[in-house]
Amino acid sequence: MYTHNYLFDFTKSVFMKMGHSEEHSESIAAVFIAAELRGHSSHGMIRIRDYYELWKAGRLNVTPVIRIIHESPSTAVVDGDNGAGMLAAEKSMKIAIDKAGSAGTGWVATRNSNHFGIAGYYAMMALKEDMAGICITNANPLVSPTFSVSRMMGTNPIAVAIPALYQPPFVADFATTPIARGKLAVAEKKGEKVAFGFVQDETGKPSDDPSILKTGGSMLTLGGDRLHGSHKGYCLSAIVDIFSALFSGACFGPFVPPSVAYLPVREGRSGKGTGHFFGAVRIDAFRPADEFKASMDEWIETFRSSKPTENQNRVLIPGDPERETEERLRSEGIILIPAIENDLLSIARELDIDFGV
Amino acid sequence: MYTHNYLFDFTKSVFMKMGHSEEHSESIAAVFIAAELRGHSSHGMIRIRDYYELWKAGRLNVTPVIRIIHESPSTAVVDGDNGAGMLAAEKSMKIAIDKAGSAGTGWVATRNSNHFGIAGYYAMMALKEDMAGICITNANPLVSPTFSVSRMMGTNPIAVAIPALYQPPFVADFATTPIARGKLAVAEKKGEKVAFGFVQDETGKPSDDPSILKTGGSMLTLGGDRLHGSHKGYCLSAIVDIFSALFSGACFGPFVPPSVAYLPVREGRSGKGTGHFFGAVRIDAFRPADEFKASMDEWIETFRSSKPTENQNRVLIPGDPERETEERLRSEGIILIPAIENDLLSIARELDIDFGV
Repeated sequence: MYTHNYLFDFTKSVFMKMGHSEEHSESIAAVFIAAELRGHSSHGMIRIRDYYELWKAGRLNVTPVIRIIHESPSTAVVDGDNGAGMLAAEKSMKIAIDKAGSAGTGWVATRNSNHFGIAGYYAMMALKEDMAGICITNANPLVSPTFSVSRMMGTNPIAVAIPALYQPPFVADFATTPIARGKLAVAEKKGEKVAFGFVQDETGKPSDDPSILKTGGSMLTLGGDRLHGSHKGYCLSAIVDIFSALFSGACFGPFVPPSVAYLPVREGRSGKGTGHFFGAVRIDAFRPADEFKASMDEWIETFRSSKPTENQNRVLIPGDPERETEERLRSEGIILIPAIENDLLSIARELDIDFGV
Repeated sequence: MYTHNYLFDFTKSVFMKMGHSEEHSESIAAVFIAAELRGHSSHGMIRIRDYYELWKAGRLNVTPVIRIIHESPSTAVVDGDNGAGMLAAEKSMKIAIDKAGSAGTGWVATRNSNHFGIAGYYAMMALKEDMAGICITNANPLVSPTFSVSRMMGTNPIAVAIPALYQPPFVADFATTPIARGKLAVAEKKGEKVAFGFVQDETGKPSDDPSILKTGGSMLTLGGDRLHGSHKGYCLSAIVDIFSALFSGACFGPFVPPSVAYLPVREGRSGKGTGHFFGAVRIDAFRPADEFKASMDEWIETFRSSKPTENQNRVLIPGDPERETEERLRSEGIILIPAIENDLLSIARELDIDFGV
């Protein structure tokens, strides 16, 4: 059991030891801890190893100079200088918010970046400015288009945060696949099968084997199969890829660089690094903010009070589970499984810093 | 068998007889014919009856004055004056395109509108300006959130059109449910069951009965059930509803007015009519348009040449099926089933215009 402050300080130390500035290390650590607190531990402390190995392999720039390449009143293209994705993402979202302040909305496409943690973190940055926030990113190719067996897309998440008045904000943050990659790994470790509709084998046959990615299989898009609308999940994932990569000049689809050092970077196409896309929408560019936020309260209350199915006792609003988890973990502390503790301990030793008791 | 020009002229005549101007009637007819040509006949001639009945019931304004209520450099709110949705939508998308010309992007939220046909039509208006186009709308409540049996949302479609250089454009246009409402009606007429994952009964149990909406059932969101990610489809549909209704001041979720006259308008909440949301994204606000479009060609060619599953011979790009259908129907003509022909004939007689041979 660790307090979030302890894990924040530890993570900050790790990134400073790699050579990041204190300010950059704090920005990075904040995203790791937000992932843990919001219950997305698949994007939390377990991932420190990936960044550490990328750095050791010389594939992560620890002193990135993140800058605007091109802009218009409501848009910008940002180059992340191959630094940790959190740094490019935080700066890009700030630029989107600034643009929205003057132009009503701000939209930033970011290239030459890396894995940035949880998309919802950046979307939520807009909330305190009375703006809606949007964040999408492409990612390592693991997912096949409908009718294909080729791994052409990442789990390409979409996050949208919208402020309310007295109600907590609406925060949607989801991969465009039925499940996250991490859930396959968990099932594999437990020796369990998964439900059909998540993965297929190398010929395109439905599979319930969570290790199928190791033998040429691939993940399916939201919808699962064509009958149940997988082509719509394919559309979504493709839209995320195009906005993230083509508007910014990042690598698209199968050419997105891996976020782990044990996979090689694929050669052959134009584009730089991982791509993200950010949006900030100033509420009062449409309606007075308090009027809009009161309507959001009405929306949230109406949906929350809709009738549950026979086997459920309540209907959730997007963001409810994560917020409730965060409230609990902020007071109770964060539990790390022994495998992650050992991993962090070995990194701590190599970097000559303390970890654990 | 009818030529699309014949059906255009007929549709134009119907709307002029209702009292629309010639210009407005042509705008409306163009969307009906586009739906037929692109193979979305569920949004084509079959729907003329709905508009006709709404008009007879005094629920459709045939001389709408569509105007901007509020604006910023990159945004506007448009009031559709309770006219046919096509009129508000066409004007709103033009405003979004104008805004994008100066601000880089343009975003328009539209209230007090009605059913507008196919969302893809408006998204595609951006293509010839070297812009990406986005169009979403809320709709009659038929769909339940995850864990709920209440009909809180429409099939809330998302359309995104992105231009390429030599390749045809990327055009995604899909409901945020596994299937369209019209497919349930078709199965019901044929006396067939549907697959599980589309609808549930009034207690929330999975159902394969396409007529279940008549006995308190509801449609499910993309994903089908919680295990397969229905909460992600719920997020998507909710985002569409909020952007369409709350940014514009339209009715949200369960309060969206029906697009058919035989259902009453539900009272009780603030908001005006059906809501839409439009976006235009100028390519060269990010990258030189030709460079971007060449990258889109690369994207399309890469995805189209990915390896098909064993039982398929090709991988599709969003927009391929509709474009191929349009090419075929433009030369072959459009077939209407006898039930629709009879329907149009009875409308023609009541309005004293000609239909058919």
